Amino acid sequence: MDLRTKLIVKPGTRLKLKDVDAGFHGDYASSEHAKDDLARNVARLAELQQKLYGEKKHALLVVLQGIDAAGKDGTCWHVMAAMNPQGTSVKGFKQPTAEEARHDFLWRVHPFAPGLGEVAVFNRSHYEDVLVVRVHDLVPKAVWSQRYQLINDFEKMMTLHNVTILKFFLYITPEEQLERFRQRLDDPARQWKISEADYKERAFWDQYIEAYEDMLEKCSTAHAPWYVIPSNHKWFRNLAVSHIIEKTLDDMKLALPAPTVDLEQIRRDYHQAAATKV
Amino acid sequence: MDLRTKLIVKPGTRLKLKDVDAGFHGDYASSEHAKDDLARNVARLAELQQKLYGEKKHALLVVLQGIDAAGKDGTCWHVMAAMNPQGTSVKGFKQPTAEEARHDFLWRVHPFAPGLGEVAVFNRSHYEDVLVVRVHDLVPKAVWSQRYQLINDFEKMMTLHNVTILKFFLYITPEEQLERFRQRLDDPARQWKISEADYKERAFWDQYIEAYEDMLEKCSTAHAPWYVIPSNHKWFRNLAVSHIIEKTLDDMKLALPAPTVDLEQIRRDYHQAAATKV
Repeated sequence: MDLRTKLIVKPGTRLKLKDVDAGFHGDYASSEHAKDDLARNVARLAELQQKLYGEKKHALLVVLQGIDAAGKDGTCWHVMAAMNPQGTSVKGFKQPTAEEARHDFLWRVHPFAPGLGEVAVFNRSHYEDVLVVRVHDLVPKAVWSQRYQLINDFEKMMTLHNVTILKFFLYITPEEQLERFRQRLDDPARQWKISEADYKERAFWDQYIEAYEDMLEKCSTAHAPWYVIPSNHKWFRNLAVSHIIEKTLDDMKLALPAPTVDLEQIRRDYHQAAATKV
Repeated sequence: MDLRTKLIVKPGTRLKLKDVDAGFHGDYASSEHAKDDLARNVARLAELQQKLYGEKKHALLVVLQGIDAAGKDGTCWHVMAAMNPQGTSVKGFKQPTAEEARHDFLWRVHPFAPGLGEVAVFNRSHYEDVLVVRVHDLVPKAVWSQRYQLINDFEKMMTLHNVTILKFFLYITPEEQLERFRQRLDDPARQWKISEADYKERAFWDQYIEAYEDMLEKCSTAHAPWYVIPSNHKWFRNLAVSHIIEKTLDDMKLALPAPTVDLEQIRRDYHQAAATKV
């Protein structure tokens, strides 16, 4: 199954998230059956990123969005960590600082855009400015409603510079979220992640869904599509994300550049020097 | 004379620079006659910038472009230096570094966009990417020709965040440029500014003029207009730029915010404390 075709939000279409099965897991009966494919994807990612890094003709920007506990951090950990940290960056965007808030909403994200040869992951992103900002009325509708087009323009500008943009919306059900919160409560290693705000935000679930649906409709473009990743199963989420990134990098036909030096001459010089020493 | 109306490039119109009188000096017979107005403008700029800084509702971005020796540095010195350096920044953009070149062309300028309360001056700017880059074929036409729209989108995005953008093209004749180069040759304090490239670039004068005319036509927008400043006379250039900035800031109806504390109470407390001490 080509998960890209299956999970992409076709530009110009509106998705009803309640029609999406957050528990979907493709052709795989269980995580056990997906294990080999995930391992293969992750190994390929490492290999392809090295080529991207060496070739320096393309860049990749991965945007992760999703409600609390949807698995953004876990995706970074399990998928992106496969790549060499040299040439790869993960940047999380939280509540803006006072200085960030004094600037246009793209000002704080732009410096973290990947250069040619680089992979950048945004854990949350400029999309927060049409999500939390909208749900909590942090700016007037007249302001946030203009941002969809501004985001499309901004992403278009980057893609014209050979930045490929992949945007993943990690989708879980409210029941799954509650279950994950419960697990955090019982896990001393993750209790620090719990905040009261997490629970309070649950009251805004429907407003968030509407904001996500608008975002997916207005900003899934041919140059920077959104993918909705069914994420109730963490293993399928990792599989799907790694699959889509792998196929996308593969399509770039990446190739390491030819050596700029005469390898044969260097080999001869080396052998001669070695021979002289003896 | 309202120099804004006189010198603006009306959006949607194409200007022939050879029809522009680089020696124009308005209603002023000489620099002597302009002295008082310039001093008044500069004093007003200082005052208005303090209000902008305190109010933090507006930002001002000034873009300076012009051929070598047109007076970009001099304009910074004579006009912008009137403002308090706290809240004001001047950023020069030269040939991109290797890291800058690996990113989209707006990546290196965006971080220097002014936040609310700030004034930023770009001495050269993102417009170099449709000027020197075009004249010297540094990227294919298919790439640079898209940038006019990308620039308009970028500037629009900033203006929606209350950043007012003023763009000044400092226009001198080739004869005036040569005369200024000659003066530099004779001035030990400015000889360091001379490079061979300056003279070589003169061979591309007509190509630059065409690139400037395209830039002025395609990127003088209602939200971020270009002004053509006749700059053969340095004094008139300073007068015109200071006039246009002053009128623009004046139109913002800037007002310092009301005190957030009870001044009367603080005065009473102070007097009481002072009285107790005696």
